[in-house]
Amino acid sequence: MVTTRLPSAGFSITIRIAVTADASSIGRLTTCVGEAGAIVTALDVVDSDPTHVLVDLTCDTADSGHADQVVKQLEAQDGVDVRKVSDRTFLLHLGGKIEVSSKVALRNRDELSRAYTPGVARVCMAIAENPADARRLTIKRNTVAVVSDGSAVLGLGNIGPAAAMPVMEGKAALFKRFGGVDAWPVVLDTQDTDEIVAIVKAIAPAYGGINLEDIAAPRCFEIEMRLRELLDIPVFHDDQHGTAICVLAALTNALRVVGKELANVRVVVSGAGAAGTAIMKLLLRQGVGDIIAYDRRGALHRGMDDLTPTWQWLAEHTNRGNYSGDLAGAIVGADVFIGVSAPNLLTGDDIAKMADRSIVFALANPDPEVDPRAARQHAAVVATGRSDQPNQINNVLAFPGVFRGMLDASAEEFTEEMALAAAVAIANVVGEDKLNPTVIVPSVFDPRVTPAVAAAIRQVVKGAPAHPNSAAMPDAELDEAPGDTF
Amino acid sequence: MVTTRLPSAGFSITIRIAVTADASSIGRLTTCVGEAGAIVTALDVVDSDPTHVLVDLTCDTADSGHADQVVKQLEAQDGVDVRKVSDRTFLLHLGGKIEVSSKVALRNRDELSRAYTPGVARVCMAIAENPADARRLTIKRNTVAVVSDGSAVLGLGNIGPAAAMPVMEGKAALFKRFGGVDAWPVVLDTQDTDEIVAIVKAIAPAYGGINLEDIAAPRCFEIEMRLRELLDIPVFHDDQHGTAICVLAALTNALRVVGKELANVRVVVSGAGAAGTAIMKLLLRQGVGDIIAYDRRGALHRGMDDLTPTWQWLAEHTNRGNYSGDLAGAIVGADVFIGVSAPNLLTGDDIAKMADRSIVFALANPDPEVDPRAARQHAAVVATGRSDQPNQINNVLAFPGVFRGMLDASAEEFTEEMALAAAVAIANVVGEDKLNPTVIVPSVFDPRVTPAVAAAIRQVVKGAPAHPNSAAMPDAELDEAPGDTF
Repeated sequence: MVTTRLPSAGFSITIRIAVTADASSIGRLTTCVGEAGAIVTALDVVDSDPTHVLVDLTCDTADSGHADQVVKQLEAQDGVDVRKVSDRTFLLHLGGKIEVSSKVALRNRDELSRAYTPGVARVCMAIAENPADARRLTIKRNTVAVVSDGSAVLGLGNIGPAAAMPVMEGKAALFKRFGGVDAWPVVLDTQDTDEIVAIVKAIAPAYGGINLEDIAAPRCFEIEMRLRELLDIPVFHDDQHGTAICVLAALTNALRVVGKELANVRVVVSGAGAAGTAIMKLLLRQGVGDIIAYDRRGALHRGMDDLTPTWQWLAEHTNRGNYSGDLAGAIVGADVFIGVSAPNLLTGDDIAKMADRSIVFALANPDPEVDPRAARQHAAVVATGRSDQPNQINNVLAFPGVFRGMLDASAEEFTEEMALAAAVAIANVVGEDKLNPTVIVPSVFDPRVTPAVAAAIRQVVKGAPAHPNSAAMPDAELDEAPGDTF
Repeated sequence: MVTTRLPSAGFSITIRIAVTADASSIGRLTTCVGEAGAIVTALDVVDSDPTHVLVDLTCDTADSGHADQVVKQLEAQDGVDVRKVSDRTFLLHLGGKIEVSSKVALRNRDELSRAYTPGVARVCMAIAENPADARRLTIKRNTVAVVSDGSAVLGLGNIGPAAAMPVMEGKAALFKRFGGVDAWPVVLDTQDTDEIVAIVKAIAPAYGGINLEDIAAPRCFEIEMRLRELLDIPVFHDDQHGTAICVLAALTNALRVVGKELANVRVVVSGAGAAGTAIMKLLLRQGVGDIIAYDRRGALHRGMDDLTPTWQWLAEHTNRGNYSGDLAGAIVGADVFIGVSAPNLLTGDDIAKMADRSIVFALANPDPEVDPRAARQHAAVVATGRSDQPNQINNVLAFPGVFRGMLDASAEEFTEEMALAAAVAIANVVGEDKLNPTVIVPSVFDPRVTPAVAAAIRQVVKGAPAHPNSAAMPDAELDEAPGDTF
């Protein structure tokens, strides 16, 4: 039972077509596209003459092969001349997705003298004399480095730093859009742990936080741990903590929906990499009933040889019954399945054998561990990582607010307490009156999410909510005053 | 003969003052500020009542001590109450000077799906399969890393990476303002040559060029040389090559003014660090008559012990007469003095002993090697690095256009041929009809400078001028077409 991919904007194409201008010619085009399984999203007339019309037809397709097929079916029509096929996703990426903007005007010598030499020298000396002023007088107040070695990019694997850039640029764009954070991609042409640690330590002065991204496990654990000890700014591995926060938020609400308590549920987690490990640590800290963890070596249990330190720790702290059988066996009677692993590991029949009112989070992307439509036949709540299914568990719910809050509060580290506070904040954005099996997390576009998460983080750091961007003004300065000289 | 600093925008303050409201009270304020040697640049009324007025008076001062004195003289006036003093340069720096902006809209799920998952995965794979696509589909096409270890920042010395940030942010702002280049500050918490080389190599995939900045000599030479061998993007040390290009441009025009040929002139260079060395190499390559180089060890000449490799090279390639006396002796009869060293090394009397129609570039900042007013009594052409004197030799004339051109042409290295082409381009912006002893370089705000330099660079790379941002469009794409779906 393989999940069929549905047409999506990620595979949207625009086709320039010349067609004979009879009354039904355009209608035949859209019908043809529809019959080919694509979804028409826009139609623009580019040019015309008395007998022909030139149109740009935009449609969502399922994948590159499907797009080719749509074009072929169009070309097979009488009187249709396909001129050019454009991929809208590629068009959007031309020249990259982010840019650097100046916040200061440099219109004349006066402005140049203050923003650069000679005026800037005094600002440099102020920071040299009082390093804490860096958060006041430089971009450090609002910057995050998005650091990746390109070793575990999306589901694509070890594609390297250059090919990872579109993801890191996208992440930076999301940071700005959802959190007002100035994030910059730092992709590294090395996959050596020591070197990555040394590089991130060296570049840290320019940043108020470090977001590790798409670095393969188990290297990511050591890098994160060592950087936390070395740096006085927070280090957050989004694949671990961002995912864990969102899963805990979703699980909190899913348990409300099915009327179960975390302390009483048995959870099966497929995938003990970066995300799975962080999820399990957070659930254990919250007092989950029991967990069985699966990875390449099967169910992690006591008595296994040659485990990595992380897997050894998991084997010791999960799996009370020391179960060592297969995944399908483990989920018999389980209350919760959380997949952060690989496509199509389970069938609807497997889900049917879970406990009553079961919860399934099948988060492998783009193809989940179990077909969500099949899972919904048997489970009470089903969530995925897909944007075309209900209950999308998306890290965008967490990381912009987490960093917004940490930057506002000048946090020096990211803590588990912050993760828990962020999860509660996300869960609570969905009011009791809105909660149901298809709505356990807010939309990523819900404008309440980032402020709620940021406020929760600030409260953990400071013990009380603070105003965003409220870093103290220096003594010898005017309040915001009228006049354009300020 | 010490240069008195003049009031400048770099030391501009705004003073909030409550004063009794008689007809001449405001006039007394501005008179008082003028008598204290400051220059009033703005006056705004903030509030008033029948007997008092509250004003913000903005004035340029000479330095921090002078600013304090201006405030004291105001406070000493009858009926004047100074409420607050604000430093406009610090106000401008609050929160830093640059930010990251998204070039893509992320208004809805459709846009999110193309800029981030799942659509972005195909873009990543395209780059993984064809690495050259990185210049088409990521920010690499237009990015420059502004790299510094904070070891030689302006005239401030080794103040470290955090305190260097305001300069690097300012540089990034200038890159955007003058060259349309997306530059990002990379300040490094290490001053180890091997580590700096390894870090810059590792972060390079995100960038189309590397601008080294304010790294102390002789370390800067080795770092630059090794990075040039390791990287396939241009490496440019602005303190060396930017300065050398501008000096050569200015000298080209100064020689036109005085009617001398480069091949016939004797040049004395004070300062054989990063800037001085690069200047001398470029002059030698252009066939200068002779050079005597000065630094801490005196006149570099053959027979000296324990020279750095750079100084040894200079000792072998300059100073035909193997002069070993003092600086004042060296410039007797010299045609050109170029100072990139320290303040007040020479007097007007020294300049008087140079050859007829001599040229003096006293570029130490903020206080030149010789008072420019004294130098002008004897030299035919005088230039400085100061914005308040004629003939300011400012690197902003070179680096934006040099990188604009290199990025447009996908240059893989910076070459001496490019430096020469850039110098000629800058010199030629000042037309023969505009040239005179006070105008040997164009204004940094002259809009013709960057395009001229960029065009010259592109011509060197490609052998022919190219259109800016003219990187080829991919095959399967539409031309810019009507309709808001593009």
